[in-house]
Parts: sequence; C-alpha cells; structure tokens
Amino acid sequence: MTVREFVNTFIDNAAENLPFSTIEKKASKGTILTDYGQLEDSVYFIQSGILYTSLLYKEEERILDFHFEGSFCSSYSSLLSSDVSDIRISCYIDCQLEVVKYEELRVAYETSLLANQLGRIATEQLFFERVKREKELLTLTAEERYQSLLNKKPELVQKIAIKDLSKYLGVRPESLSRIRRN
Amino acid sequence: MTVREFVNTFIDNAAENLPFSTIEKKASKGTILTDYGQLEDSVYFIQSGILYTSLLYKEEERILDFHFEGSFCSSYSSLLSSDVSDIRISCYIDCQLEVVKYEELRVAYETSLLANQLGRIATEQLFFERVKREKELLTLTAEERYQSLLNKKPELVQKIAIKDLSKYLGVRPESLSRIRRN
Repeated sequence: MTVREFVNTFIDNAAENLPFSTIEKKASKGTILTDYGQLEDSVYFIQSGILYTSLLYKEEERILDFHFEGSFCSSYSSLLSSDVSDIRISCYIDCQLEVVKYEELRVAYETSLLANQLGRIATEQLFFERVKREKELLTLTAEERYQSLLNKKPELVQKIAIKDLSKYLGVRPESLSRIRRN
Repeated sequence: MTVREFVNTFIDNAAENLPFSTIEKKASKGTILTDYGQLEDSVYFIQSGILYTSLLYKEEERILDFHFEGSFCSSYSSLLSSDVSDIRISCYIDCQLEVVKYEELRVAYETSLLANQLGRIATEQLFFERVKREKELLTLTAEERYQSLLNKKPELVQKIAIKDLSKYLGVRPESLSRIRRN
C-alpha cells in the first residue's frame, strides 16, 4: 500500500494530488531511520516490511512496538515537541518506505483539508493501536496476548524472533517458548 | 478552558465559528457518561473537573486513565468502530463539560478544515499521552512514576484517593503509602 492508496481507502472523494511530496526509500534490515538523541524530521509510511521502535532503559534496549505495512511511523514526541528523540526507529526486516518531510506536512496542515484529514485518520489509528495494546497489557495473560497476536498477525509471529516477541509481549523468552509449544 | 479556547490556543487564525455545536453539561461526581456495552455517540471536552476511564477485567474494575481539564475524552474505540464500548467513562469529581455529538463531527470532517485540524490536534495530544504513559510504565519505577505525576499534576495527587492512584500507577496501595511517606 502507498500513501496515495491509504488516502483513497480512508477518505472519500480525495481526488486532488497529495498536498506534500513523498520520497520512496528502500532500507535494509537493521537500518536505523531515527536514533536516540536525534531531532525527528520525517514521517515514515511502510509500503512493505516491519519497523520497530525501541527505548533505552539503563543501557538496555526495550521494544516499544512493531509497526507494519500500511501504517505510519515516526518519533512523534520529537516531531511534535521539537525535543530530541528518546526512541530509535529501525528496520526489523528489509523495508520499502515512503518518507514525508514534516516541514512540508506542517505547512500543508495550515491550509489543506486533505492533509488534516489524513493526519487525523492516521493519528486516530495510531492512538487506537496504543489503547488496544494497553488494554491487552492490563487484562490479558501473556498466553492470551500471544494468541491475540497470532490471530491478528500470524505471518508476524513467524517473522519475529522469540527473544524480540517476548520483549514485545512483556514475558520472558522461556515462558513464550512454553506457550508456543502448547 | 472551552472548546473554542482550545481551538484558539492550538490553531492559528481560526476565526470562523465552530463547524459543530457543543452542549454545556454539568455532571456530578460518580455520574457515568458512557457505560460498558453502550454505543458511544459523543466526545466530551472537560472544562473543569476530572473524568476517569475504567475497564472490567474478571468482574474487577481497573482504571485505564484519568482525564483532566482542557482535554477531550470519549470511548474512541466504540466511536470509531461502531462496536459497543468496553470502557466506562465516569466523573471522578463534579465536572463541567462540553458535549459534541459525533454525528455532527463526522459530517464536519467531510468538508471542514477547522474540524479536521481540531480532530488531528486533539488526537495527537491523546496519542502523545498514551505513549508517554507507556514509556513511563516500561522505564520508571513506581516511585519515579509517582514523582513524575507529582511534578506534572500536584493538585491531582491531592484529589485522587490512594487506592485509585495506586491502580493508575500500577502499584499496590501499601507500596504507594510507603512511597508517599518518603
């Protein structure tokens, strides 16, 4: 999916051109798109592949989230506050991305209905994902969270290493291996 | 703060009238605005007071979040998916609210730049809050989370009962009492 297709899927009658430019970018597994301490200046749309965001905690890296094709990813707190990023965005596998420069988006937000519709809908989806994840962390056991992920993203469970999946689900790798066997 | 003032604070040159109506509503402590199993049809703007959202887990109520004046609150997953709400929104203390009917907002979203700017900015803030909370849960100890809340919202720490604050911070009430004494 491209940004243009995303727009066509979620916004009726969006016939006009996109009110900002996008740059196609191939990035191979392990590429760091935004690093700790960097000022974020872009929003990434994932045409294919998987990105992940991580956080440093006492020198140890923790996985905040995985991001999949057809969604946007950025260090939003850096973008919106102009503080340096406290997260890192990396390619979990080879990715095909579309990059939007925030400065162009910010200008478009001042006058463009389409830019704001797109920004609103993309942010609603991001927000929605966070709320779902938080609810799952509050109410489901590790086993149920694994089952839920398996139902929603079976191909993902194949692509992500047990040690990373366990960081994401908030369980120890040994527990996850046990859950997988059952 | 009113919705109009929120708009003036965050959107430059927003001189036109709001593209939807708002209804002023007083709601006393304990009032349930949206309940489990109900279809959400409104967005609440908090002029003054505190709302809280909760979730049922095995018959037990868990506090998802507190929401403070100058921000929007709704059962967004119900609003956006048209599924019934899995959360409850209640008044933690007496509240002065402005209610926006989602149907009016949805229609405004089709054509109004201002409605989409407002929707985008309000959702960015909600998203941002969730991300901050999630990062704190991943990286701070209970004591540090309490300290962070005390710095950000000292008046809140006074207004919220220890048992509720402990549910919010994800610690046991006894631990929180100990932290408070230190």
